[in-house]
Amino acid sequence: MKNIDTLLHARWIIPIEGERHCLPDHSLAIHEGHILDILPTDKAREIYQAETEIYYAQHALMPGLINAHTHAGMNLFRGLADDLPLMDWLNHHIWPAEKQWVNEEFVQLGTELACAEMLRGGTTCFNDMYYFPDIAARVASKIGMRASIGLIALDFPTIWARDADEYIDKGLIVHDEYRSNELISTTFAPHAPYTISDEPLQKIRMLADELDMPIHMHIHETAHEVKEAVDTLGERPLQRLDNLGLISPNLVAAHMTQLLTEEIELLAAANSHIVHCPKSNLKLASGFCPVKQLLDAGINVALGTDSASSNNSLDMFDEMKTAALLAKGVSGDATTLPAHQALTMATLNGARALGIDDKTGSLAPGKYADVIAVEFSNIENTPVYDPISHLVYCCSREQVTDVWIAGRHIMKNRSLTTLDIERIKQAANAFSDQVIL
Amino acid sequence: MKNIDTLLHARWIIPIEGERHCLPDHSLAIHEGHILDILPTDKAREIYQAETEIYYAQHALMPGLINAHTHAGMNLFRGLADDLPLMDWLNHHIWPAEKQWVNEEFVQLGTELACAEMLRGGTTCFNDMYYFPDIAARVASKIGMRASIGLIALDFPTIWARDADEYIDKGLIVHDEYRSNELISTTFAPHAPYTISDEPLQKIRMLADELDMPIHMHIHETAHEVKEAVDTLGERPLQRLDNLGLISPNLVAAHMTQLLTEEIELLAAANSHIVHCPKSNLKLASGFCPVKQLLDAGINVALGTDSASSNNSLDMFDEMKTAALLAKGVSGDATTLPAHQALTMATLNGARALGIDDKTGSLAPGKYADVIAVEFSNIENTPVYDPISHLVYCCSREQVTDVWIAGRHIMKNRSLTTLDIERIKQAANAFSDQVIL
Repeated sequence: MKNIDTLLHARWIIPIEGERHCLPDHSLAIHEGHILDILPTDKAREIYQAETEIYYAQHALMPGLINAHTHAGMNLFRGLADDLPLMDWLNHHIWPAEKQWVNEEFVQLGTELACAEMLRGGTTCFNDMYYFPDIAARVASKIGMRASIGLIALDFPTIWARDADEYIDKGLIVHDEYRSNELISTTFAPHAPYTISDEPLQKIRMLADELDMPIHMHIHETAHEVKEAVDTLGERPLQRLDNLGLISPNLVAAHMTQLLTEEIELLAAANSHIVHCPKSNLKLASGFCPVKQLLDAGINVALGTDSASSNNSLDMFDEMKTAALLAKGVSGDATTLPAHQALTMATLNGARALGIDDKTGSLAPGKYADVIAVEFSNIENTPVYDPISHLVYCCSREQVTDVWIAGRHIMKNRSLTTLDIERIKQAANAFSDQVIL
Repeated sequence: MKNIDTLLHARWIIPIEGERHCLPDHSLAIHEGHILDILPTDKAREIYQAETEIYYAQHALMPGLINAHTHAGMNLFRGLADDLPLMDWLNHHIWPAEKQWVNEEFVQLGTELACAEMLRGGTTCFNDMYYFPDIAARVASKIGMRASIGLIALDFPTIWARDADEYIDKGLIVHDEYRSNELISTTFAPHAPYTISDEPLQKIRMLADELDMPIHMHIHETAHEVKEAVDTLGERPLQRLDNLGLISPNLVAAHMTQLLTEEIELLAAANSHIVHCPKSNLKLASGFCPVKQLLDAGINVALGTDSASSNNSLDMFDEMKTAALLAKGVSGDATTLPAHQALTMATLNGARALGIDDKTGSLAPGKYADVIAVEFSNIENTPVYDPISHLVYCCSREQVTDVWIAGRHIMKNRSLTTLDIERIKQAANAFSDQVIL
């Protein structure tokens, strides 16, 4: 018998990688934070002696979900303003609220609130872009959550920095602080083509090449954005980014609702990544991301919720379901984005986009044990013909019972072990009480 | 002090009818199954002495949700086959499964499973269409759930009837049995234009006129259906139904993804009702119902889940959210279908479509007390700026804590009082174990 840290026995294991999509009555062996083995439960009992051994008789174990586009701090603005046109929503609600309220304490609390919500919903890693990335990194690191922290950059001054150079300089300090952290990675996060000019983009491209870091950016989110660029600059934003050398395997482009066939070919040839945000795109009427064409072109498509101000949840189960349903509707083909592919987008494809698929995104020996347990015994999931179908079309995030990140048991039977939910709720409610609508 | 049965105090009451959308710190007075009064809590404490008095300090009380298009018996086929083209799905999966498995026991158990799921999700009334409507009526009546039972009619034989005349005759017996039942109403339910011929439709129209009953029918669900009708009969199904006199205030048309401007005008002028099924339409890639145009034309639009085989949940919270998001995406206008309108579609508009808005669909004195309590204290709903926004964009059905139908407390703090969940789960799992995929 081999002594290991943890042995999890499950009704089903959904590894995401490998030939078989669903392994019934299998076990996951975890040692020193990493996945050691996945094997039939009867064999696991013969081979491994674990310090902690748990039976999940009515559960699926799968990789933790990766939310590939967030603005975690904005969780404090959840449902602040809805049902408004994008520019009215931004100009008269979100931006004034940010100007009035965003500071270090806001980002700290908002990120804690977002992390609590994400963890309880089975998300083990998020790809963030917001002011005070140092604080987001500190929150995630402290609670033991995996995060890809965007080093935000803009042309104009905000509470975080005065100009593009200062954004980049402050970002590099954050990058340096976390460069050997096992949970935190960093991306350059120039906000969007319309908020950052050529010079800082060229600097970011050079730095990203040197440091081999992803560049996380909102691109072609709306038709308005594209039209305005064509009207003022004479070219579509993707063309400009291509001229600047940004269309590369490092590019992680969020939204992408406006794409010509040749632009899809360009992105595919460059091995760039796209983060599809179906709920945000619907809620803000931004347009439909052509997911079927992207997948057909072989582009790596991940999934993100966007912020709680434009969604209004950080619920990756809902995002998977919405992505799978919407892709069928938009393509007119009910075979588009089947359940297992939706699960892959919400896990492994996210890890690939963030350049951390050697560490996470699937259940495979050698990767960190970023794992969730999802229970299927409720009447809303009865009967079960195919657990993969249920994970996408039927499950709610409330069915996630347990979460491990790098082998650490972060949620035990619905209770978070590293965050004080009651303190966060009280503080968030105290914050919202001050906001006059 | 006036003695009454029940007094519910809530943080918010969302009545759906009336000038004010949200009544903070209000109370609902219930007596003899009906709503007696809605008033500020401090006044309610002065006026009413209730046998049962409950405080819902972090809850919204609202009318029970009305699922206006279901095939409840099919819940036993939840997730049996997904990600397939419609005709392959029907011809090679659903119809063969129905032929093999549907009988009285199947419908009894499937309907119980569906009712348990719906009640736990805050649905207090469903508009059904399936074989053995007598059994569906008996199940709903026995457990105290409101239902509109479709008297299904087809040209071809099934286990329920041999030909159109027998479907209609057997249906009329069900209608007669429940005509004075306070919970059960009936509709004629000719399945779809392509499964029933002119003669029985004329008979149904005449009977519906005489008995003032709704006619519940799948219409223009897919482009294929419309094209086939044009190719074989030379006219679109709606034209044919209009020729037969079916476009009337009694018509409850489910799906309606294919509509010309003149057809929308025809339906508006006739005061016909439409049941929008956004998730089913997406999953089967049926097309987009033009919800904005329907609402702009003044048509009453209700919401339905369709069956658990094409959704795969009977979750009206998810259906509301999907409807509100999708209508924005499809119309390209983020102001389309705001939150309160989505709530109205899922409640009062359903009651209007079924001709029971004098009994249910909103919280108003004189109506039956069909009420649900939704709790907002979880971290996923923190903070709360606007409870109406949260009900649509943020809540999950798991937050429904209590359900009353005609004043009867059918779910108490998440426990159903008239259904044995464990028995249903065991029986449903035993059923699915026999099905070889």
